[in-house]
Amino acid sequence: MENVLAVLNLGDLAQAFSKMGMFPVFDLAYYIVSILYLKNEPGSVEVSRRSPVASWLCAMLYCFGSYILADIMLGSSPVDYFQYNSHILLASAVWYLIFYCPLNLFYKCVAFLPVKLVLVALKEVVRTRKIAVGVHHAHHAYHHGYFIMVIVGYVKGSGVALISNFEQLLRGVWRPETNEVLNMSFPTKASLYGAILFTLQEAHWLPVSKSTLILVFTLFMATTKVVMTARHSHGSPFSLIESWTCHLLFGSSLGGGEEDNHHPPAGAAPSPVKTKEELSEGARKRKAKKAE
Amino acid sequence: MENVLAVLNLGDLAQAFSKMGMFPVFDLAYYIVSILYLKNEPGSVEVSRRSPVASWLCAMLYCFGSYILADIMLGSSPVDYFQYNSHILLASAVWYLIFYCPLNLFYKCVAFLPVKLVLVALKEVVRTRKIAVGVHHAHHAYHHGYFIMVIVGYVKGSGVALISNFEQLLRGVWRPETNEVLNMSFPTKASLYGAILFTLQEAHWLPVSKSTLILVFTLFMATTKVVMTARHSHGSPFSLIESWTCHLLFGSSLGGGEEDNHHPPAGAAPSPVKTKEELSEGARKRKAKKAE
Amino acid sequence: MENVLAVLNLGDLAQAFSKMGMFPVFDLAYYIVSILYLKNEPGSVEVSRRSPVASWLCAMLYCFGSYILADIMLGSSPVDYFQYNSHILLASAVWYLIFYCPLNLFYKCVAFLPVKLVLVALKEVVRTRKIAVGVHHAHHAYHHGYFIMVIVGYVKGSGVALISNFEQLLRGVWRPETNEVLNMSFPTKASLYGAILFTLQEAHWLPVSKSTLILVFTLFMATTKVVMTARHSHGSPFSLIESWTCHLLFGSSLGGGEEDNHHPPAGAAPSPVKTKEELSEGARKRKAKKAE
Repeated sequence: MENVLAVLNLGDLAQAFSKMGMFPVFDLAYYIVSILYLKNEPGSVEVSRRSPVASWLCAMLYCFGSYILADIMLGSSPVDYFQYNSHILLASAVWYLIFYCPLNLFYKCVAFLPVKLVLVALKEVVRTRKIAVGVHHAHHAYHHGYFIMVIVGYVKGSGVALISNFEQLLRGVWRPETNEVLNMSFPTKASLYGAILFTLQEAHWLPVSKSTLILVFTLFMATTKVVMTARHSHGSPFSLIESWTCHLLFGSSLGGGEEDNHHPPAGAAPSPVKTKEELSEGARKRKAKKAE
Repeated sequence: MENVLAVLNLGDLAQAFSKMGMFPVFDLAYYIVSILYLKNEPGSVEVSRRSPVASWLCAMLYCFGSYILADIMLGSSPVDYFQYNSHILLASAVWYLIFYCPLNLFYKCVAFLPVKLVLVALKEVVRTRKIAVGVHHAHHAYHHGYFIMVIVGYVKGSGVALISNFEQLLRGVWRPETNEVLNMSFPTKASLYGAILFTLQEAHWLPVSKSTLILVFTLFMATTKVVMTARHSHGSPFSLIESWTCHLLFGSSLGGGEEDNHHPPAGAAPSPVKTKEELSEGARKRKAKKAE
Repeated sequence: MENVLAVLNLGDLAQAFSKMGMFPVFDLAYYIVSILYLKNEPGSVEVSRRSPVASWLCAMLYCFGSYILADIMLGSSPVDYFQYNSHILLASAVWYLIFYCPLNLFYKCVAFLPVKLVLVALKEVVRTRKIAVGVHHAHHAYHHGYFIMVIVGYVKGSGVALISNFEQLLRGVWRPETNEVLNMSFPTKASLYGAILFTLQEAHWLPVSKSTLILVFTLFMATTKVVMTARHSHGSPFSLIESWTCHLLFGSSLGGGEEDNHHPPAGAAPSPVKTKEELSEGARKRKAKKAE
């Protein structure tokens, strides 16, 4: 594979791509898309009115959850990343614009589908880089700790999703019946597979250079996520292979059962196309439920 | 301001005050008031009968929650403070006397209003000192990590309040619909503002010496808390400024909405004047609910 | 006591016993019994079909929860133990065999009472050793931190039980009304008492060598646990002493009240003799409840 890429002169491209800085353009896209998803969560607009501090904390978890989790996993300070004031200020500005911009202008701009598709693609570039850096970081700390590499890469890629139960708790919402490990969404699953691939690469069991792997995995993630966002789909490109593997290895029933996991009950999944009206509708319903 | 204080010879006073040791008098007051609040929580007397270990753990969280949280934030061992055996033993003795003293004598003494007012004032002295030390500590670890300084000062001032959901869980109580970030009480809010002030001072953006700031902030906190305790009030002196700031910055509705946050629903807030009879009444009601 | 043992030539035996390696035989028994308990938890078989990743994570918590908790307590990386690939692979193999072995053969073999009694005895050997190592470890980090030694020994002995609420959450189950500190089971209680004994020994307040203490405590734990497993009993040999101590120290009512804690409501305690049919029965009931 390396040879083919060399012929196509893609090796240099991959090298340059893997050296490219993420701040501020790519990180900005990451913050925007993440906080966009936060605003789409039912009740989060209400929280932003009642307690700006809680809303800001949730936004920080959405933007920096992967750093917080990886720092915890490696025994560092969970707020270590908050020393980068410019990153925090940039994310805070995005949070302010998305939640409090007059006429909801900023939200409408970035949620406009063509803009959003570009941002989503840029976000996946950051995600892949985070997984690669996470695995490398863990490899540095535990030279033969392959499980640790996979775990750190996984949490670096999944970020807030893995602690969504506790992020929701901060907003006064508690849904113990599900979590991101029981019902993995596509990005969480892809992060796990990516972490395994990058660990295999780091252990020299995969005959591919790291920069090539970053390029290929980024292209796969960006394409899949853009297509899924454009088609409002929650299906996963892995489902066919997974359903057969799970059937063979874990005796899961073929087809139906596995499919169900990809379609969590309505309301549980953050549907990225809800309008503000639908959201306040949802908030009203939740209030009514509480009142009962 | 520094000059004015110098003329009034307050500079030396502030200096001496900021050097004053907290152990054992002030710390003792802190432990007493904290465990007093714990005993006022519905169901905690019942827990102290059923599982002394759980009750002791809760008491330790109430007394040392701020150290535990700050140690976690800075990546140290969460039980680091438990190496100070004399502090732990003192707090344990207070816990034993408040919960198990024959005839409830100790509780009645320290809950007697004039005594309690003095203890509450002393507790605020400790709180302010904790915020200042926390910010200084974080400044030492992250020289330009202004956000980290604010966070560490905040958790040092708020202590167990920020993890009250999990402290309640230890006692078998679970109230996911609210938390101390969503509905900040006065001490939590004041800790946040204090942490911001001390961070500004540490960054030399506030033209005030640290000892002066400690003195002024302590006086403010002690006065306010004593007045609030004496009047059984949960209102906050910040509410007018906050309501206008939130209106301008975050588009919150003026008046009503903000006020509501200061008055959490009955039963959620630890009302410090409940008698033992009222408490067992509450426990009985909770049991009845469970039985349904 | 030391002299008596010397005469009986037990000192050498104790010395040899305390030097004996735990990997792989004893650790294997530990993994098997732990994951056996996990499979007996209602709903865990269902989870293993729906999400193998969640099931594997739970199994790892059951096998390595004590290391994770102790590492957190001492401020290390919580996944530190995952660097020992052979231990993780062995536990993963046990998890796979117990949950996915055709015809449920492996489960039936290890759950066969005579086999299980041997495994349970071996598991208690590991538990005692963990407590001793945990206390020693904490003593190394905090030379006079007696409370820290007890805490670390306690979490090393109790393991996943102390975080059972969060382990259940991973499987989509949430029972906030109880936890292992409120309703201590026998192993948790024994771990606490063991941690206190080993701390007293480490502080030279107990006139006994560490190897003797390990031998005696192992014999006590293994005998008690084997008898309890054979008789399907949840009663505790401490209950008489405890009920009197609690009465004198904490004013608990004698008899009834204390007894109740040892018999948590049906369904809350992991009953180790449920057949697979009973389990799916339980799962069906839970589903029915949810549907209501």
